[in-house]
Amino acid sequence: MDHLMSPADEGRQNSRHRVLIIGSGFGGLFAAKALRREDVDVTIVARTSHHLFQPLLYQVATGILSEGEIAPATREILRRQRNVRTLLGDVVDVDLDSRTVTALAPAGITYTVGYDSLIVAAGASQSYFGHDEFAEHAPGMKSIDDALELRGRIFGAFELAELETDPAAAERWLTFVVVGAGPTGVEMAGQIAELAHRTLPGDFRRIDPRQARILLLDGAPAVLPSFGDRLSTKALRQLHRLGIEVELHTTVVGVDSTGIEVVDGTGTRRRIETMTKIWAAGVAASPLGKLLSLGSGAETDRAGRVMVEPNCSLPGHPEVFVVGDMMSLNRLPGVAQVAIQSGQHAAGQITRRLHGKPTGQPFQYHDKGSMATISRFSAVASVGKMRLSGFLGWMLWLAVHLLYLVGFKNRVTAALHWFVSFIGRGRSQRTITIQQIFARTILQKVAQEEAARLEASQSR
Amino acid sequence: MDHLMSPADEGRQNSRHRVLIIGSGFGGLFAAKALRREDVDVTIVARTSHHLFQPLLYQVATGILSEGEIAPATREILRRQRNVRTLLGDVVDVDLDSRTVTALAPAGITYTVGYDSLIVAAGASQSYFGHDEFAEHAPGMKSIDDALELRGRIFGAFELAELETDPAAAERWLTFVVVGAGPTGVEMAGQIAELAHRTLPGDFRRIDPRQARILLLDGAPAVLPSFGDRLSTKALRQLHRLGIEVELHTTVVGVDSTGIEVVDGTGTRRRIETMTKIWAAGVAASPLGKLLSLGSGAETDRAGRVMVEPNCSLPGHPEVFVVGDMMSLNRLPGVAQVAIQSGQHAAGQITRRLHGKPTGQPFQYHDKGSMATISRFSAVASVGKMRLSGFLGWMLWLAVHLLYLVGFKNRVTAALHWFVSFIGRGRSQRTITIQQIFARTILQKVAQEEAARLEASQSR
Repeated sequence: MDHLMSPADEGRQNSRHRVLIIGSGFGGLFAAKALRREDVDVTIVARTSHHLFQPLLYQVATGILSEGEIAPATREILRRQRNVRTLLGDVVDVDLDSRTVTALAPAGITYTVGYDSLIVAAGASQSYFGHDEFAEHAPGMKSIDDALELRGRIFGAFELAELETDPAAAERWLTFVVVGAGPTGVEMAGQIAELAHRTLPGDFRRIDPRQARILLLDGAPAVLPSFGDRLSTKALRQLHRLGIEVELHTTVVGVDSTGIEVVDGTGTRRRIETMTKIWAAGVAASPLGKLLSLGSGAETDRAGRVMVEPNCSLPGHPEVFVVGDMMSLNRLPGVAQVAIQSGQHAAGQITRRLHGKPTGQPFQYHDKGSMATISRFSAVASVGKMRLSGFLGWMLWLAVHLLYLVGFKNRVTAALHWFVSFIGRGRSQRTITIQQIFARTILQKVAQEEAARLEASQSR
Repeated sequence: MDHLMSPADEGRQNSRHRVLIIGSGFGGLFAAKALRREDVDVTIVARTSHHLFQPLLYQVATGILSEGEIAPATREILRRQRNVRTLLGDVVDVDLDSRTVTALAPAGITYTVGYDSLIVAAGASQSYFGHDEFAEHAPGMKSIDDALELRGRIFGAFELAELETDPAAAERWLTFVVVGAGPTGVEMAGQIAELAHRTLPGDFRRIDPRQARILLLDGAPAVLPSFGDRLSTKALRQLHRLGIEVELHTTVVGVDSTGIEVVDGTGTRRRIETMTKIWAAGVAASPLGKLLSLGSGAETDRAGRVMVEPNCSLPGHPEVFVVGDMMSLNRLPGVAQVAIQSGQHAAGQITRRLHGKPTGQPFQYHDKGSMATISRFSAVASVGKMRLSGFLGWMLWLAVHLLYLVGFKNRVTAALHWFVSFIGRGRSQRTITIQQIFARTILQKVAQEEAARLEASQSR
C-alpha cells in the first residue's frame, strides 16, 4: 500500500514549517527537543521505535542492564512535546528537489513525507573495512539486536564449554576476542573479564570460568588513543590487571566460525582459536550519506560521512542538515556529545531562519570530556584539562551516566542493577532466548563444519 | 561431536546415586532443591539456560517486566547446591532399558547421560488442537521467546496503526484477539486494555489507542471456570468494565495473517479482522510423554500427558517419575503448584528408597489456591474456602508473586516495575528489536499478500 497522503502531510493544512528528522538517536532526539518551543511541525522518522543510549550497550550485552533501560520508546520520551510526531520507517530515499523523503515500514507500508527543513541524523553502523563477511562471525555493537545477540553468544559460550569433553574445544569456547580498543572495546573486554572472574565461577562444575582468555586487539599502538598518553597507559595497566591480553599493532585479516586470523606487530600471521568474536573497530555512516552526496554533489569521507558546511548544512542545500555520526566536520569524533550538540545546532539554525535572523553560524563543539569504565570502581576520564583515573574516574562515570540516562525510572533501576553488579557479583539480565542459543547461524555453521569434518575423516 | 564420556558420567567414579532431571521449570527446579541435603549426584538437562517463572510471562509480553526478572539462569539459582550440575540440552531420547538419556545441544554437540533415578519435568507447549498452522499467526505464551515475540507484535501494532491512512487497515492493527479465557488469557487481555487506556494514549498523534478493540474468546461458557461461579462472574464484570469484549461459547476455526474465523454460540461462522492474535487456549505435554509411553507401555491422555502411578512414577518403572504439566493424575490442573509439589514428591520418593524406606506413597496435592489479576488493583483469588476479589484479591496476588519470584534482587526490581506500571502509567520494557519489527514472518506475509492484491487490481 502506498501512502500518497502521508501522515506527516496532514499538518500541511495549517502551513506551519515542517521539520523532518531522520533518526531517533542522540542527534535526532536532541534536535527535536531543541524545537519544543517553536511553532513548527516536527516529524521523526526512525528505523526503531526506541531511542538508544548507545554508550551502555555493552552492559546489555554482558547482562547488567535490561534493554528497556537503555532503549525507551521515542514517542514516550516525546509524548508531552505536542509538536512532534514519531513515525516508524526505514528511509530509503531523499529527494532534495521535491523536498520529500520516502520510508519503508513493516507489513509493506511505504510512505512519503514532505519537509521544509530536514535534519539527517541516521547515525552509523559497524564497518568491517571491506570485509562484510566478518559480520556473521563477529557481531558489532551498534543496536539492541547486536547487544542481545552478543549476550546470547557470551553466556552461551560458557554453557557450551561446560558440555565439551574435548579440552581444545572447551578452550575455544572460553576464548573471547574483542576487536577494537576504543571505549566500547575496552569496556566490553573489561566486563567479560568481570563476568569470568566474579560472576560465573561458582555457577559451573566442570569448567572454571576464570580460565577464560580475553583478548583485546587493535591495529593502533595504544588503547583509548583519544584519551592521551597518561590515561591510555593507566587503562592498559588496568586491563592487564584484569587478566586481559592486549595485543596492539595487530590487524585482523580473517574471521571464521571457530577463529580469527591476525597479523601482529612483527608482521607474523597467526590464528587465534575462538568461538566468540566481538567487533568494536570501525564505523561506517548510514548509506543515506552516499545518497545525499549523489543528490547534492557533496563529498563524503572514507567512512561515508558527508562533508558539511561549517553550520552542519549540506552544501548547496541550506535547508538540509547532516549531524552526528553522519557528519564529517573538523575531524570531530563520532561520540554522543557531538551528535547531541550538532543536532541542537541544526535545530537552532532552523529556528533562526524562521525568526528572520541570519544563519550560517559555524558549529562549535564544546568537548565535555570523555570517559571509559574498565572494571567496577575504575574508570578513566578526561574532562577539560583534568585527567581522572581509578575510583575518582569511576564516580564521575557513574554520575554522568545516571544523569544522561533518559527517564527517572530508568535511572533508578539502572542504579539498582549497578549496585547488584558492582557491589554484589550478580548479573540480573542473563536470559538467552531459545532462538538465540539454538538457531544461531554461527552454531549451525559449526555443526555443519564438524559434520563435514567427521564425514571426511570417516571416509578416509 | 559425540560425547561418549558424558559430563554427567564423570560422577560415576564415586558411585553415588545419579538423579537425572529433565527440565528446569517449576517441577525440575523444586525436585533438584528437594535433593539438596542428599548424598546424590543431580544433573539437570534443560532446553533453556534459565528457569522460567511462567505465571508472569504476560507481563514481559506487555512491557512491565524485563525477561531477566522472570527468567534467571538456572545454574545461578542452584550455584550453592554443590550436588547439582546443570547442562544445556534438548532431550531427544530416553532409553528406559539402558537408563540413559540423549540430548542435543547447539553447535552439533550431542551427549548421553546415565541415571539411576529419572525425573521427567519437560512441561508443556501450546496446543492448537490439531491446527498447528495457527501458531505462525497466533503465538502462544509458553516461553521467553513467545513473550518477546508478542511484545514486538503488540507494541508494533500500535506503531503501524499510526502509519495507516486506510481506516480499515488501522482498525485491523488496533484489534487484539486473545484466545482462551483461563488465567493467562484473562491477564493478557486485561494488560492490553491497560496499555491501550492508560499507557499509550498520549504517545500517538493520529490514532487514539483507547479506540483499540480487545476481544477475549473461549469455547467454554465462562471465564476462569476453575475459579467457581462467583469469581467467574466478578471477573467477567471486571473485564467488561475494562472495555474488553468477551465472547464465550466461541470456537476458533481459522487463523490467518489479517484475521480470525470463529463459530459463535449460535453456530454462526464469522470473521474478525485483526493483525494481533494471542493463543492462550490449550496445552500439549512435551513429546517426551509419547516417547516414555512407547518405551513403557504407559498410556497418555488427550493432551499427551503420561498416566502415572499414584506416586508419580512411570508404570513398570519405579525409578522414573513424570511430574508437572507432563503428568496425568487425578485430573490435576497444569499449574505451578502441581509442578512444584509433584517434583518435590518425586524427589522424596527417591530419597526414601535410598534410605531403605518403603516407597509408593501417593502424591497428595495441597491446593494453595489460584489467582488471576485482571487489571491494576483488581484480582480474583480462590484460596481454600476463601474467595477474594477486587483490591483485597490484588494485594494477595502481589504478596504471593513477590514471595515466589526467584531471587531477592528480582523481587526488588519487579516491585519497582509494578510501582511504575500500576501507580504510574509507564511501561519500562517496551523495546522492540529491529528483527522483531522488520523481519517478522507475519508482516512479510502481509506485504506479499498486499503486493499480490495490488498487482491483481492493477492488471485488471
